[in-house]
Amino acid sequence: MKTISSVQNPLVKQIIQLKEKSRARKSSGLFIIEGRRELSLAIKGGYIIRSVLFDDTICTAETIREQCTGLQTPPELIALSGDVYRKLAYRETTEGTLAIAEGREHHLDALPMPRKNPLILVAEAPEKPGNIGALLRTADAADADAVIIANPKTDLYNPNIIRSSVGCLFTRNIATGTTAEVIAFLRKHDVGIYGAALTASVPYHTCDYTGATALIVGTEATGLSAAWLDNSDQNIIIPMQGEIDSMNVSVSAAILIFEAKRQRQFL
Amino acid sequence: MKTISSVQNPLVKQIIQLKEKSRARKSSGLFIIEGRRELSLAIKGGYIIRSVLFDDTICTAETIREQCTGLQTPPELIALSGDVYRKLAYRETTEGTLAIAEGREHHLDALPMPRKNPLILVAEAPEKPGNIGALLRTADAADADAVIIANPKTDLYNPNIIRSSVGCLFTRNIATGTTAEVIAFLRKHDVGIYGAALTASVPYHTCDYTGATALIVGTEATGLSAAWLDNSDQNIIIPMQGEIDSMNVSVSAAILIFEAKRQRQFL
Repeated sequence: MKTISSVQNPLVKQIIQLKEKSRARKSSGLFIIEGRRELSLAIKGGYIIRSVLFDDTICTAETIREQCTGLQTPPELIALSGDVYRKLAYRETTEGTLAIAEGREHHLDALPMPRKNPLILVAEAPEKPGNIGALLRTADAADADAVIIANPKTDLYNPNIIRSSVGCLFTRNIATGTTAEVIAFLRKHDVGIYGAALTASVPYHTCDYTGATALIVGTEATGLSAAWLDNSDQNIIIPMQGEIDSMNVSVSAAILIFEAKRQRQFL
Repeated sequence: MKTISSVQNPLVKQIIQLKEKSRARKSSGLFIIEGRRELSLAIKGGYIIRSVLFDDTICTAETIREQCTGLQTPPELIALSGDVYRKLAYRETTEGTLAIAEGREHHLDALPMPRKNPLILVAEAPEKPGNIGALLRTADAADADAVIIANPKTDLYNPNIIRSSVGCLFTRNIATGTTAEVIAFLRKHDVGIYGAALTASVPYHTCDYTGATALIVGTEATGLSAAWLDNSDQNIIIPMQGEIDSMNVSVSAAILIFEAKRQRQFL
């Protein structure tokens, strides 16, 4: 088994690039998974895992092999010295595991639409990777049929998205596209578009979300773009009764999606 | 007007202590407010502002005086050089304003209970100051009658709480106490206790929150303590249908509190 004990090793440098640079991820088609739970969910989500690197002072090749049993092509295992692992890991509590995996395209056309009345969460241009991860966690808890990021500002394999989604990025149905593409996609599938607006809308809880429904949330700073507000079937608002006139996007999304779930009796 | 242009000035050191050390806040009874909006809300909330320090390259004494018109006792104004301000400010975009204010006690006994059927949010031992701020924002949006922190792990004037609450810390009714004290308080006021549990509970949306209601949320890691679960009128659960078995506490709180608001028709 290959062992890396120098931080000067070219693979170490490549991993740092893959973690830090969206461009490096795009050009290679690869990304880094940190953490055992995250790796498990990537395996469950059918991702191709090229290599698993592990801190051999924390865990053993045997543990890693067991975790990777489900994979058709077993990944290359590479042992790291404690020093090298700590240089690469954001969290030192992730049980000594990093993996190099192949990314996906996440085209809208490839998004499965198995249910007659899907519940879809759309976020337009979320500002922070951490917000995308939080949205994914909410969508996971609600078992939303899909999450779509319109006009994304980052690729989905940003380490902060993986971390803040606790790995459920890998098991949710996710697509990205321009706002125009996403609107066309929803129209094509006869999905009702409910845009979360800041003004001139009906209260969110007065709408019926039991049909095919897409809930669209914008950024905390500027809300949804005109393209969404003009093309929605209904703009909705969460009544805000205090001093502050905005909510965190993942909180708004949770309120909306769980109201839809309630109306659907969590089916 | 006093002007400070050296970072060695004793007041500069005191401000840094007040920002960084809970103990310094407790022993002096003072804390630091950063940002114009936050200062406005503190004034609106009736806080006593001792001093306002401003970066005289960003704003003028006149602007500050206007902002402080509502105060019975006008604060001392102190001009700072750009260097000193940048040393003290977390954000450089906060319009050059810092204030020294007097803290409050937040005893349960002093918590106003004006409504017959109050809606109260209780969080037990929230782990991160940022989570407390997010809870306060949710409570603000819902105009909850009170927020109670049981077994707090930090004082409420931690700068991260102020920042993440966008200042609504200053305008909400907030109290702190031990879990035992909070339970006794709620019982005394005949407030129904709904504990958000992870198992053995009824789905949250099947309960009636139109009476006097306290929604109790625990930490993401361990949930509510047995004291809450054993003393609640009803334990409730948000059905989780995905891969991840936990939600961020501010997201859970938002789902619960907005369901209560919906049932109350946002009145």
